[in-house]
Amino acid sequence: MTEPDDTTGSAHRLSDPPTTADIAAYRMLSDDLTAHLAVVAARHGRSDVAATVDSYLDISWDPPTMCVALYEGARIEEAVDAAGSWTLSLLAADQQGAATLLGTPGRPVHGLLDAVPHHTAPDSGAAVLDGALAWFDLRTVATTRAATHVLVVGQVTAMGRSLPEQRATDPLLRFGGAYRRLR
Amino acid sequence: MTEPDDTTGSAHRLSDPPTTADIAAYRMLSDDLTAHLAVVAARHGRSDVAATVDSYLDISWDPPTMCVALYEGARIEEAVDAAGSWTLSLLAADQQGAATLLGTPGRPVHGLLDAVPHHTAPDSGAAVLDGALAWFDLRTVATTRAATHVLVVGQVTAMGRSLPEQRATDPLLRFGGAYRRLR
Repeated sequence: MTEPDDTTGSAHRLSDPPTTADIAAYRMLSDDLTAHLAVVAARHGRSDVAATVDSYLDISWDPPTMCVALYEGARIEEAVDAAGSWTLSLLAADQQGAATLLGTPGRPVHGLLDAVPHHTAPDSGAAVLDGALAWFDLRTVATTRAATHVLVVGQVTAMGRSLPEQRATDPLLRFGGAYRRLR
Repeated sequence: MTEPDDTTGSAHRLSDPPTTADIAAYRMLSDDLTAHLAVVAARHGRSDVAATVDSYLDISWDPPTMCVALYEGARIEEAVDAAGSWTLSLLAADQQGAATLLGTPGRPVHGLLDAVPHHTAPDSGAAVLDGALAWFDLRTVATTRAATHVLVVGQVTAMGRSLPEQRATDPLLRFGGAYRRLR
């Protein structure tokens, strides 16, 4: 074990509030967090809203509970908030095109999913991407604001695989700002 | 686009509360969520408490904010709660031994980190694993209970890389219940 001073060569102390340089350094460092890309979708009135996300997690098994962090005021956040239920589709490596399409901010919502093969989740009525490794249909049970985002906690009401009876083998990942796959 | 009925072949509806079979099915499906393993640590009185986690996320850049889901009542949850500050070390592929050691429930806390090279974070005083791809020192700003777990939201006060000036290239991942690496 080394002393605290030994870390200062590589340690970056942040100001409070953080400076522009602090935020830039954090953005670069947090790119080292490998993410399994997923698509969150919700039915908003007569529209299907969907967005690629990397900030979600499996919280609990009992009851099955997950959470997603959404930028407050983004269309997908407003749609999830209004609908009270939503889906999460875990992407496969061959869904890079959909990940890019649904991960580009500012695209018109209407018709965005027309080019992405999908079906409808049984409870939320939101989109599930065909070919996703696994999908979850969730009902919001709690929300918490955290900095610029809203943490939406959901209980799983239904779930499935695109390929029944078959284990998923090839997730779509992002690391260091690029799409990656498992070895 | 297919109709809802087309999904029922692979859809699993959960009871509320979930049955044992529901929970087992969710555990299997949620293994398809690729996780970048990390170690959460906190200084609890005179003890260093640390545990391998797969449920954490980067929430926001402004201010830099992350969150971790910890099993309520676990020693690491109690230590993080008591300390009010904690660290997150993103593991590299060659840290599989530490991930297994710190991921095994029920081990005695005292001396657990003796076998794991580490140093001390500047603000929390908690352990940072030497050789981690990146590490973050966090101050808790909010907590929310979610099912069996507590979501702990923290603001980053300091951070760094083990290898300054060098991009991380090889994270330790878990997918389908096994350790994996990037291609």
